[in-house]
Amino acid sequence: MIIAVIGDSSCSPEEAKLAESVGELLAQQGTTIVCGGLGGVMEAACRGAKSKGGLTIGILPGQDPSAANPWVDIPVATGIGEARNVAVVKSAQAVIAIGGRYGTLSEIAYALKSNIPVIGLNTWSLSRNGQKDDSIIRVRSAAEAVDKAISLTKRRKIYEIASLRSQ
Amino acid sequence: MIIAVIGDSSCSPEEAKLAESVGELLAQQGTTIVCGGLGGVMEAACRGAKSKGGLTIGILPGQDPSAANPWVDIPVATGIGEARNVAVVKSAQAVIAIGGRYGTLSEIAYALKSNIPVIGLNTWSLSRNGQKDDSIIRVRSAAEAVDKAISLTKRRKIYEIASLRSQ
Amino acid sequence: MIIAVIGDSSCSPEEAKLAESVGELLAQQGTTIVCGGLGGVMEAACRGAKSKGGLTIGILPGQDPSAANPWVDIPVATGIGEARNVAVVKSAQAVIAIGGRYGTLSEIAYALKSNIPVIGLNTWSLSRNGQKDDSIIRVRSAAEAVDKAISLTKRRKIYEIASLRSQ
Amino acid sequence: MIIAVIGDSSCSPEEAKLAESVGELLAQQGTTIVCGGLGGVMEAACRGAKSKGGLTIGILPGQDPSAANPWVDIPVATGIGEARNVAVVKSAQAVIAIGGRYGTLSEIAYALKSNIPVIGLNTWSLSRNGQKDDSIIRVRSAAEAVDKAISLTKRRKIYEIASLRSQ
Repeated sequence: MIIAVIGDSSCSPEEAKLAESVGELLAQQGTTIVCGGLGGVMEAACRGAKSKGGLTIGILPGQDPSAANPWVDIPVATGIGEARNVAVVKSAQAVIAIGGRYGTLSEIAYALKSNIPVIGLNTWSLSRNGQKDDSIIRVRSAAEAVDKAISLTKRRKIYEIASLRSQ
Repeated sequence: MIIAVIGDSSCSPEEAKLAESVGELLAQQGTTIVCGGLGGVMEAACRGAKSKGGLTIGILPGQDPSAANPWVDIPVATGIGEARNVAVVKSAQAVIAIGGRYGTLSEIAYALKSNIPVIGLNTWSLSRNGQKDDSIIRVRSAAEAVDKAISLTKRRKIYEIASLRSQ
Repeated sequence: MIIAVIGDSSCSPEEAKLAESVGELLAQQGTTIVCGGLGGVMEAACRGAKSKGGLTIGILPGQDPSAANPWVDIPVATGIGEARNVAVVKSAQAVIAIGGRYGTLSEIAYALKSNIPVIGLNTWSLSRNGQKDDSIIRVRSAAEAVDKAISLTKRRKIYEIASLRSQ
Repeated sequence: MIIAVIGDSSCSPEEAKLAESVGELLAQQGTTIVCGGLGGVMEAACRGAKSKGGLTIGILPGQDPSAANPWVDIPVATGIGEARNVAVVKSAQAVIAIGGRYGTLSEIAYALKSNIPVIGLNTWSLSRNGQKDDSIIRVRSAAEAVDKAISLTKRRKIYEIASLRSQ
């Protein structure tokens, strides 16, 4: 199971704490973390995951694997700039968004476009043409975020297997 | 001057009418249009522009230039899928969003991240962590959208020249 | 008809002269030029094309359209770095390679992979596992390069129409 | 240490055997393998690595992680098509090319452009403008390929540390 943790490369201490807890809890569940590989929320999530023996992947915008934060096990140097945001979310079975700015918003958009569940902690809300879009699943704690992400990933797998069988 | 028109590849008749008017008005001002090259809002904007002798560029997700709608003069076949959304907005000095779904939302996010002005017609609204984000400039008509886009592009150029001179 | 001219961003005076002639001749035939938008061979080809009233597209690696050489009419700012090499060749019906280093080699490879004809002027030669690969069509002059590129583009179109009809 | 193994998605039994041995030997040295995630050479290398307990990363062209071959531990779904070839090589400290067609050639080109060492087993040879380009380091066996790749990776690291210290 691979779950993405997304958020800004600079973040508040509260966001960092949330991200670190999310990382710890995901690792304790045996989940691999994928993120954008840089600082802020991404670094805090990786640090949390490594403290519990998790595996962390950083999909970097630049060409240099050494630009990854020190808690990234597998730096993927894409060289494609912000277009790498697509790869961060598509490589995951669910996405946890913590805070975030416009880069995070583009990742949320790409995930929702591909029907990848997005769980949000203090992040963007969307409405379109005056109507609220409730696709982002709002939670209030790191534990709730991780529970949702993992249960939705499992439900999604069961659904996919069912679809395959019915073909 | 290059201005992006963004929106979904399937759209309502009202959105198509708005997009066609935007295309016509941009072409009448001598502006080149860049878009994602496919149907819906993109096709309507290109059709409008061509009816007034404008130049249209379609930045396609796929590898085949012939996938462009028939009103695209210059099909750019990127082969990079939805990551081409970055290129659509970064190639423009301003962006006009008409309606749109998650693909359009990713383009709005990329534009705002790069400080490229986004003018919105019946499109997404954003708030972050409970606070409204007013970065999308809301307008009510095709004429207002085009006026805003062109005047912001000009103001941006003057600002850039001023920054260069003061260095 | 859109034809790509590829080569390095720094080039010898002989290569620049060849590229400029290629640009002039393509423009005289009413062909649009697509290139990587930067200096060297790309700039010389665009300069030649503009001297004969041609249209030039520059598909840039970076996020800033103003990085294009001054002879580019339509700068496409992809922001995807060297991955933009794919888009340069896939947007063309034929490719003319003049000199070139490893970036040009990646473009030749992508073009050949997609069965887009590559015409070579003093450029790479390939062999694989000891056997010569003659896919690059070697020519000796700008005029010969342009003739080949245009006639192969036309032949390709006829073939495509024939394939469609026989389906 | 991350080393890329590149080659075609369909390959001869001899190439598959070479790739499998390369995978085994890299894993025995504790090296992580990165590849394009599909069949042929990529699959054989991953299978070899997994048989010796190695870690394998597949950087896929498409949007679906489940398109990876069954021996990929970490599928990265880029959604950027063949432009993902850039990411395969830039994520590695050295590249081992086995056989290969035009996709592999584009990867060799990108690696050489970034000064990432390329070790070749029965793969492309290059000459430019009549002069041989000896940048690809030719070897005759899987063992020699792995030795070269690892020793060049180490030498490169020492050189980078030395450059940093002298700054």
